[in-house]
Amino acid sequence: MRTLLVTFTLSLVIMGCKEQKPTPLTSIFPEGTKGAAKYFTGNAYNTGLVANDTTLTTVVGNVYFEPEARSNWHTHPAGQILIITDGIGYHQIEGQPKQTLKKGDVVKCPSNVRHWHGASPKVGLQQLYIVPNTEKGIVNWMETVTNEVYNQ
Amino acid sequence: MRTLLVTFTLSLVIMGCKEQKPTPLTSIFPEGTKGAAKYFTGNAYNTGLVANDTTLTTVVGNVYFEPEARSNWHTHPAGQILIITDGIGYHQIEGQPKQTLKKGDVVKCPSNVRHWHGASPKVGLQQLYIVPNTEKGIVNWMETVTNEVYNQ
Repeated sequence: MRTLLVTFTLSLVIMGCKEQKPTPLTSIFPEGTKGAAKYFTGNAYNTGLVANDTTLTTVVGNVYFEPEARSNWHTHPAGQILIITDGIGYHQIEGQPKQTLKKGDVVKCPSNVRHWHGASPKVGLQQLYIVPNTEKGIVNWMETVTNEVYNQ
Repeated sequence: MRTLLVTFTLSLVIMGCKEQKPTPLTSIFPEGTKGAAKYFTGNAYNTGLVANDTTLTTVVGNVYFEPEARSNWHTHPAGQILIITDGIGYHQIEGQPKQTLKKGDVVKCPSNVRHWHGASPKVGLQQLYIVPNTEKGIVNWMETVTNEVYNQ
């Protein structure tokens, strides 16, 4: 009877807590618009937060990458800052090892270097992007990141 | 005995879940350094994320304002962007009504206008700040925000 009571109690504790478990990734912003297939592999959703203007000359937004989704290779004429707010993903500058990203990580990408970013195979990625000094340009899109490069 | 069992079980469920309950506000970044009393009323904690440099010319960081905490009045020579990641707070540009902020909100503050920001009286605020075009300057600190202004 005692064993049964302990088992029953523990089951209820576990069940009770599971019900209150938060969803795997925290969304701060609305889901946004699906990124075009010509720029992204898989499902990536962009939410624009600050549009380009002549005063702040800074574009800000959020991308939610579903697992396995990633950007094409691209460059930013004035560089880019990424801020990871949840999930697990990757960032790679051409010629450098792939860097793993997690909640709280910050990436500073220099100007005019080829890079890509996206989610890990099993866990998505929530990332803010900041493109400064937009008078120099915002983004130049290039070719798809192959599975071979992604899985390296 | 049955009543006792149910009471005991429910108590354990509640206790178990309480232990795993997330804190009221989601922290993405480490708590950071307490803001100086000459610039902040109450407890505000700054985490620098991107330091100033001559390439990105953009400073990024996170401030956690405890309930009732707020910045002094200040200006940014090239403006500022605020991104609210959790909690409830306020932003006020001098001469305009106090604006209430919540998770997902974005504030664009023009250059050289006097403003302040901080938490609501009961709920803290987690906010990212982006200061662009730092070659023009970063921040000019001014006087305390009085309780009268804060409570308006």
